[in-house]
Amino acid sequence: MEFEIRNVGIDTGANVVLINGHDATVYGLAPGDRVEIYAEGSSRKSIAIVDVANLTKRNRIGLTSELSRELRLRNGAKVKLAKMEQPKSLAVIKERLRGRRLPYESLYSIVRDVVERRLSRDEITAFLVGLHAHSLTIEEAEYMSMAMVNTGEVLGLKKKRIFDKHSIGGTPGDKTTLLAVPIVAAAGLTIPKTSSRAITSAAGTADRAEAFMPVNLNVDEMRRVVNRINGCIVWGGAVHLAPADDIFIRAEYPLSIDPLLLPSIMSKKKAAGATDMVLDVPVGDKEKSPSDAELLIRDFMYLGRRMGINVHGAITRGDQPIGYAIGAGAEAREALSVIRNIKNVPDIIDKATGIAGMILELGGKRQGKKLAKSILRSGLAEKKMNEIISWQGGDPKIRPEEIPLGRHSATVLSDRNGTVLSMNNIALASATRILGAPLDKRAAIILHRKLGENVKKGEAVFTLYSESSGAIDDAEKHLRENSAMLIGSGNEMLIKRIVKVKTSHPHFALER
Amino acid sequence: MEFEIRNVGIDTGANVVLINGHDATVYGLAPGDRVEIYAEGSSRKSIAIVDVANLTKRNRIGLTSELSRELRLRNGAKVKLAKMEQPKSLAVIKERLRGRRLPYESLYSIVRDVVERRLSRDEITAFLVGLHAHSLTIEEAEYMSMAMVNTGEVLGLKKKRIFDKHSIGGTPGDKTTLLAVPIVAAAGLTIPKTSSRAITSAAGTADRAEAFMPVNLNVDEMRRVVNRINGCIVWGGAVHLAPADDIFIRAEYPLSIDPLLLPSIMSKKKAAGATDMVLDVPVGDKEKSPSDAELLIRDFMYLGRRMGINVHGAITRGDQPIGYAIGAGAEAREALSVIRNIKNVPDIIDKATGIAGMILELGGKRQGKKLAKSILRSGLAEKKMNEIISWQGGDPKIRPEEIPLGRHSATVLSDRNGTVLSMNNIALASATRILGAPLDKRAAIILHRKLGENVKKGEAVFTLYSESSGAIDDAEKHLRENSAMLIGSGNEMLIKRIVKVKTSHPHFALER
Repeated sequence: MEFEIRNVGIDTGANVVLINGHDATVYGLAPGDRVEIYAEGSSRKSIAIVDVANLTKRNRIGLTSELSRELRLRNGAKVKLAKMEQPKSLAVIKERLRGRRLPYESLYSIVRDVVERRLSRDEITAFLVGLHAHSLTIEEAEYMSMAMVNTGEVLGLKKKRIFDKHSIGGTPGDKTTLLAVPIVAAAGLTIPKTSSRAITSAAGTADRAEAFMPVNLNVDEMRRVVNRINGCIVWGGAVHLAPADDIFIRAEYPLSIDPLLLPSIMSKKKAAGATDMVLDVPVGDKEKSPSDAELLIRDFMYLGRRMGINVHGAITRGDQPIGYAIGAGAEAREALSVIRNIKNVPDIIDKATGIAGMILELGGKRQGKKLAKSILRSGLAEKKMNEIISWQGGDPKIRPEEIPLGRHSATVLSDRNGTVLSMNNIALASATRILGAPLDKRAAIILHRKLGENVKKGEAVFTLYSESSGAIDDAEKHLRENSAMLIGSGNEMLIKRIVKVKTSHPHFALER
Repeated sequence: MEFEIRNVGIDTGANVVLINGHDATVYGLAPGDRVEIYAEGSSRKSIAIVDVANLTKRNRIGLTSELSRELRLRNGAKVKLAKMEQPKSLAVIKERLRGRRLPYESLYSIVRDVVERRLSRDEITAFLVGLHAHSLTIEEAEYMSMAMVNTGEVLGLKKKRIFDKHSIGGTPGDKTTLLAVPIVAAAGLTIPKTSSRAITSAAGTADRAEAFMPVNLNVDEMRRVVNRINGCIVWGGAVHLAPADDIFIRAEYPLSIDPLLLPSIMSKKKAAGATDMVLDVPVGDKEKSPSDAELLIRDFMYLGRRMGINVHGAITRGDQPIGYAIGAGAEAREALSVIRNIKNVPDIIDKATGIAGMILELGGKRQGKKLAKSILRSGLAEKKMNEIISWQGGDPKIRPEEIPLGRHSATVLSDRNGTVLSMNNIALASATRILGAPLDKRAAIILHRKLGENVKKGEAVFTLYSESSGAIDDAEKHLRENSAMLIGSGNEMLIKRIVKVKTSHPHFALER
């Protein structure tokens, strides 16, 4: 089967080859079949899933963006197709759908086929639904984690102990990593931190860091930085540690399911070589309850023990944003101001030094939090952060106010006297997204009050920043309608009255 | 088959007849078989499940307490046994276990057999597990609710509209019903309130009310009271509205599952004839999140609409106890003090008048909360409460301080300066249970501080009351170990550090 190719520029999240219906009949191909594609004389081969589309001309095939990127051929180039057998992992997926628990070899075969693009999006979805319907056993969680490690790059630092941290759930405004990594690295411990970008939130740590330095390092660059200065803050997506995870997340998101939460996180840590980590689980308003958080931490501890990673857990307050800024640029400003001792933001400092302190204690230091605070106060953390910025390719002299915010801004005033009783993290995140986040790092919400503080009618509660003036009105409306900041007297007991039947959907967060 | 009976006084939660192994072989009976038991000449017949126990002598059978209560025969009395066929509902339960959704007739057959004791505890458990594994559809929830109504008594008031309220989840110290019922009844609306006793909490509303008046009214007595004075506060267990529920709850509790939450509540309301109700769902610390609460309220609204009950929902603060008193007696004191305008407890008053106000608005009144407050302030609510006490057989002149508290008491002092950052409702409830609740109504914890209030080192935070001085030490230890009141500075972010692997169990509350 020889065909002329067209790069059709459709982004499907999977390798798909579009073929004319007549050709499909002639060559015996059906939608969902797997084919190998290769250009004569080229060693580059790709695997793709067939889809029949009659908008494709005969003797011509269309390649989706993913496939175009892999094959790198111009329009009109000739390729050959060879039909492949169904991957064996498909049979294993069907067993898992019926609840059969799988050994390492079976899970590895699935993950390998996912990474090598042998499985279609539908098949990956079926696998994830199977895992969701019949939850992973602790053994399966370990096997999946190790399968994900063994199908990607590993960092391979030559260090006896490697430290890491992870926060679950994407609390708005959480700048902990931006402070904790330089503090820990300044104390001489190795902390090769990879972070994610926002999925459902306003900003991930990779987005925050990117507002003042490059974060798209590859694994060799990352290794060089960490070997030299003990720490880094890079985007996990670029380093290809446990790459199956990114494919799974794309399939999980539309279904609002998250069966691979533990393997997703632990595989990345293992691939970075972590021996010790602190897991931070924020609880509060819209988040988990402390008892759920504790169960989750204990699951991570068990899994960590099986994988040779010593896990300590921290349940932290997540009932309101951390600090005052939400949105990558504004958060980067706030974090830099704190690490440079320009600003004192007590909750950020308490959380970052608390988490850093737990890591320092894992590393054998005494009075970790006190030590973390003194590293911050003395300027050692700032010095380390400047090294990180510099080694990752940024300008260490950057001043917080040089990080841009949206051109348009508006301040929202309180319409009553009272105390801040609660904040709605989800509404704050989605309002920041209305303002342009996470793609536009200049989109921001600045809080002027925190929980328990008093406010008078007419005083400022939020300032919004965006490149779009229309978005500001929409975001303001969204904040009001979703009680982003509930102001009342301390004895008001009714939070919300519901008197009309209407459909409502639970919020789903996929932040790791 | 003729046997001599022994009332063996074992309480199994089901009708079980114990039979000697030899007799079982002779008569072809196996464990799990169903038999009819009757005394010759008596019209009283019971159904029981066979269990084989060789401690029973030949030609003699042992009756568990449930069966003894039904048959009311002296030891040595002669009875006949007749083996029964397996109930048809058993086949239906097996279908449900495999996920098949059931029509009304099938669910009714199960509920009827549950109430008539034709199903064993194991079979009921299997049914509940089936409902838990494959959640009820909204249709099934309606059918179960109506099946539970149609297998019990109904109140049958001759009123066009009947009002009700329900709080989910058992927040410690919640005296809302004790205030809202007299307020609503004083405004001329009919509110025949049945309440439950504590299952996992320190006190249910029936326990609180029983500290100052009888609550074990039967359905005829309840009808008479409501017809006369518009309202009552009685124990649901005595009135036999939807009695299947009590049997289901006994089977759910050891499994920590609660598939029948909605039918359990709505069947009782329907059996009381409710046309309108307010559902109160507290959220906070250890409870549901507001978004979960909203979904739950919407489920109740849909189900209510199908059952002819107009449901309005209120999401309320449940992040700390309501008021200052926990434990039936102490809570009764506090509620009486508020309704008699002796004490002003702002959160109790706000919640009770807020909920009562929503009921009043369902009944067509304007500015419900304002009206509720004026009914409370003017003494009309007190007058109505005195009528309720009197008609239910109590002494309306009872003074709050006449309700007894435990003989032993101790006051717990704060070991630091700070602000109350969080309360642990579950720890407060379990400490009160250590002090003797719910059986001993004198067991109590009095809070001296609420969320957000300042406290100095050495100032009182709790006072504990118990009949047992040893229990006081245990309860104090439990409060400290579980951070019942977390005191710190407002910017302390780490709630708990978890550094040792150990098994932990999630808390399960079965309060309706």
